[in-house]
Amino acid sequence: MVSWKNLDTLEAYHSLAETKGSVKLSEVMQGESGALRVAKYSLPMAGGLTYNYAAKNVDDSILASLAALAKEAQLSEKFQELYNGAMINLTEKRLVLHQLTRGQLGDAVIADGRDKRAFYKGEQDKIADFARKVHSGEIVNEKGEMFNTVVQIGIGGSDLGPRAIYLALENWAITNKTLKMEARFISNVDPDDPVGVLRQVDLAHALFIVVSKSGTTLETLTNESFVKNALEKAGLDPSKHMLAVTSETSPMARNSGYLAAFFMDDYIGGRYSTSSAVGGAVLSLAFGPEIFARLLKGMAEEDKLSAVSDPLRNPAMLDALISIYERNVLGYSVAAVLPYSQALSRFPAHLQQASMESNGKSVNRFGEPMNYQTGEVIFGEPGTNGQHSFYQLLHQGTDIIPLQFIGFKKSQNEEDVEVKGSTSQTKLCANVAAQIVAFACGKDDENPAKCFAGERPSSIIIGEQLTPEACGALLAHYENKFMFQGFLWNVNSFDQEGVQLGKVLANRVLEHNTDGALKAYADLFGI
Amino acid sequence: MVSWKNLDTLEAYHSLAETKGSVKLSEVMQGESGALRVAKYSLPMAGGLTYNYAAKNVDDSILASLAALAKEAQLSEKFQELYNGAMINLTEKRLVLHQLTRGQLGDAVIADGRDKRAFYKGEQDKIADFARKVHSGEIVNEKGEMFNTVVQIGIGGSDLGPRAIYLALENWAITNKTLKMEARFISNVDPDDPVGVLRQVDLAHALFIVVSKSGTTLETLTNESFVKNALEKAGLDPSKHMLAVTSETSPMARNSGYLAAFFMDDYIGGRYSTSSAVGGAVLSLAFGPEIFARLLKGMAEEDKLSAVSDPLRNPAMLDALISIYERNVLGYSVAAVLPYSQALSRFPAHLQQASMESNGKSVNRFGEPMNYQTGEVIFGEPGTNGQHSFYQLLHQGTDIIPLQFIGFKKSQNEEDVEVKGSTSQTKLCANVAAQIVAFACGKDDENPAKCFAGERPSSIIIGEQLTPEACGALLAHYENKFMFQGFLWNVNSFDQEGVQLGKVLANRVLEHNTDGALKAYADLFGI
Repeated sequence: MVSWKNLDTLEAYHSLAETKGSVKLSEVMQGESGALRVAKYSLPMAGGLTYNYAAKNVDDSILASLAALAKEAQLSEKFQELYNGAMINLTEKRLVLHQLTRGQLGDAVIADGRDKRAFYKGEQDKIADFARKVHSGEIVNEKGEMFNTVVQIGIGGSDLGPRAIYLALENWAITNKTLKMEARFISNVDPDDPVGVLRQVDLAHALFIVVSKSGTTLETLTNESFVKNALEKAGLDPSKHMLAVTSETSPMARNSGYLAAFFMDDYIGGRYSTSSAVGGAVLSLAFGPEIFARLLKGMAEEDKLSAVSDPLRNPAMLDALISIYERNVLGYSVAAVLPYSQALSRFPAHLQQASMESNGKSVNRFGEPMNYQTGEVIFGEPGTNGQHSFYQLLHQGTDIIPLQFIGFKKSQNEEDVEVKGSTSQTKLCANVAAQIVAFACGKDDENPAKCFAGERPSSIIIGEQLTPEACGALLAHYENKFMFQGFLWNVNSFDQEGVQLGKVLANRVLEHNTDGALKAYADLFGI
Repeated sequence: MVSWKNLDTLEAYHSLAETKGSVKLSEVMQGESGALRVAKYSLPMAGGLTYNYAAKNVDDSILASLAALAKEAQLSEKFQELYNGAMINLTEKRLVLHQLTRGQLGDAVIADGRDKRAFYKGEQDKIADFARKVHSGEIVNEKGEMFNTVVQIGIGGSDLGPRAIYLALENWAITNKTLKMEARFISNVDPDDPVGVLRQVDLAHALFIVVSKSGTTLETLTNESFVKNALEKAGLDPSKHMLAVTSETSPMARNSGYLAAFFMDDYIGGRYSTSSAVGGAVLSLAFGPEIFARLLKGMAEEDKLSAVSDPLRNPAMLDALISIYERNVLGYSVAAVLPYSQALSRFPAHLQQASMESNGKSVNRFGEPMNYQTGEVIFGEPGTNGQHSFYQLLHQGTDIIPLQFIGFKKSQNEEDVEVKGSTSQTKLCANVAAQIVAFACGKDDENPAKCFAGERPSSIIIGEQLTPEACGALLAHYENKFMFQGFLWNVNSFDQEGVQLGKVLANRVLEHNTDGALKAYADLFGI
């Protein structure tokens, strides 16, 4: 049996706290010592990726303390409980099974009277079959014409992950001639969102996927109505254009209003649902089921690494341990994710949700208050763009913000241009290498405005190319990192009670059942 | 003469610090008191906007202290010096004149032997004339065909602001039948960025605007080459498709490689350049010069409000004062901007640059170290999307993050749908009203996981509709807010020395002039 304890009750945490300040990056990253760290503090990931943490505030002694913390916190045993089907999500009394959508790390998980891996795999097979029929022209519109666009209607986890991955692979797919259909996304209840997207879509040749686990998400149902109206106005039959991704018990299941329905269940949280039918339907239709399978393969391989008990062989676990060291020992409250890859432009927005919704909690998994900080703020934009934007504060601001870079040796597309003796891709890579050293080592200058204090820790995930496997490995890495962070903080990373109050009050406004400030704000909007 | 002093040397700052904790939002925002605050703590802005700060940790006494601080810090006098042409950007020995691109608040500013307002206005007129000729078919491509797309090639300030404003008004322009040309943006040196954008562009009918003040920005020149290659490969003449926005002394000025060149100068920083030719060319071509003029009108009106000396009549000044109270007295280090408007999807990314690059500084304007925190981290995504993502942490995380909402009574487009008795727009507005109250007041519950501590301060900028004038007012509001913050922190908000070190080290990598960690990282990338 594992034992769930608050971080500050663990002995290893207190020994770790004593190491604060013992590693000065501007010293250890200099000269030969720096080169040795880059060679040594490196860990293979799936999908051809490597996790390099040379520029983090660690040394062999701190790493040993982190390993002791991992052991005392039983991180590996807790993950094992999770993938073997324990009820990890206590608040909602649910299993946590998203890893099962891409493989089986442990025992068969039987729940609701069936094998869950078989259920998720069965839905994938149904999706693959459906997608192939759409791509071959066996499934067509009312006039017998091929579909050319797929539009996902969903919000939060039904939007951010699938959208980030679609954008991550869209140009790769064009280059590799595997883009089957363009994808678009409608999420916001702001009517300007569906209006804007529908202006770009050829309705007669579009499939719409309505994604809501409960079948009751107000934004999504509203946008579904919006789209149905548009289809009807164009003389089209919505039931020939709309698909559902939902749970089997939802009002959207087995509903003749949809051409097809694909299922997930309550054991897959929205922010962890990209590898389920939530991402599977849109990504298989856009790229073909074979490409989606390659994404899952990258995820499954990364999951296997996450199941290794030694944190020095487990990149997600080590990444989580270092982030806890930064958050709770060094006292940094924000972290930036900086992909040097335009294709990953919306990946930080997905991580923002996955991390902040999972671990932005003030009580532990038993509902008790804690004496330490939990989830950090995550933000980021692609480099080199960010260098011309918020990097000023990262380099010279008064707070230290830990960074995680992501970079690839090769671009996704074959085209490039040589200017001043180097290609664009080489310039991109040179910049990320330069930034890591600049942040760690800083620079003295007689003009104080040109001084860089350094001591800004960063790590990098570096790969050959952003392929479907690499993309999958990245996605699973972060999912598992956030899970390990949650284990360390002893919070339930799989509920989201903090979103409820806003919904309740919004409904009161819509029912005109308000008083005081709520009525006054509603009045400002003329509601 | 104004006197530039560190924040912690001001008497008013110390009196302000004594008020810490005196306003409990969960108390003052309850019942009738809350309604009264919403009515009272409200300030008109330009463009039909209102700044409402009822849900901030202020009361009449704190506001009086903030007003005393504004007076002692001579905020109004400093702005006056700035718009009358003093050398505010000391490090770079430059005037700061971006407000002159949209109006003249004070004396004529003569620099480099000419009237600067006349110069900026002259460039606007040249752009308007050029845009009208493109729209009328007087300026056409090699084959005599009309252009239909405009592509901006620029990075940082030459990208984020113009892109955010284009996206803010694109669907408004379609609805109002004033979209003349679609705009696209290429920024990143990652070759996947130009490849991806060029795939969406009909080259033969596209104009490309190369934007670089110095004419030497490596990313931008590289992407210019990329585009020129693509044009040549398509049998097109680049000089018939390319425009320059640059300074008159740059190598891009008076260059026969461009169809036309429009000028700005060193007195307009990149992040403040949306109202100059940097934004003017692309936005006038996309929307027509009349729409760009309406944006400038909104900005000019907001600038006038920012010149009012009483902070209780000056929304940008008050917003800045409250943010300093939150950063330096209450100790909050991050702020979120949350537009309930899909059209403002990239506006937070622009603000992230404008704020973090301006005020992420560790030395004061004279190069001396300071004993207080400066620039905060800014992030944000549109609502209601964010509600299904990172709001969990905002509501129940262990850190308090001050919020600024933006919302509009009407959507930009006329289409809407009624579901469960309300339109999408009403649902959107109901949600923002609900969130403000939920964040301020919280909610008790016997289940601790369902408790909301409240005490999360927020303000809202609320408008009728996101029109060009409203958009301009928003943009100028934040520019002026960041300026006032910089005055209070006594930093130079107009330089960006922190971006230099990374450039120097990247060049060393490209020249293979590396050792130690830098060489090791370059090796990882195979450079």
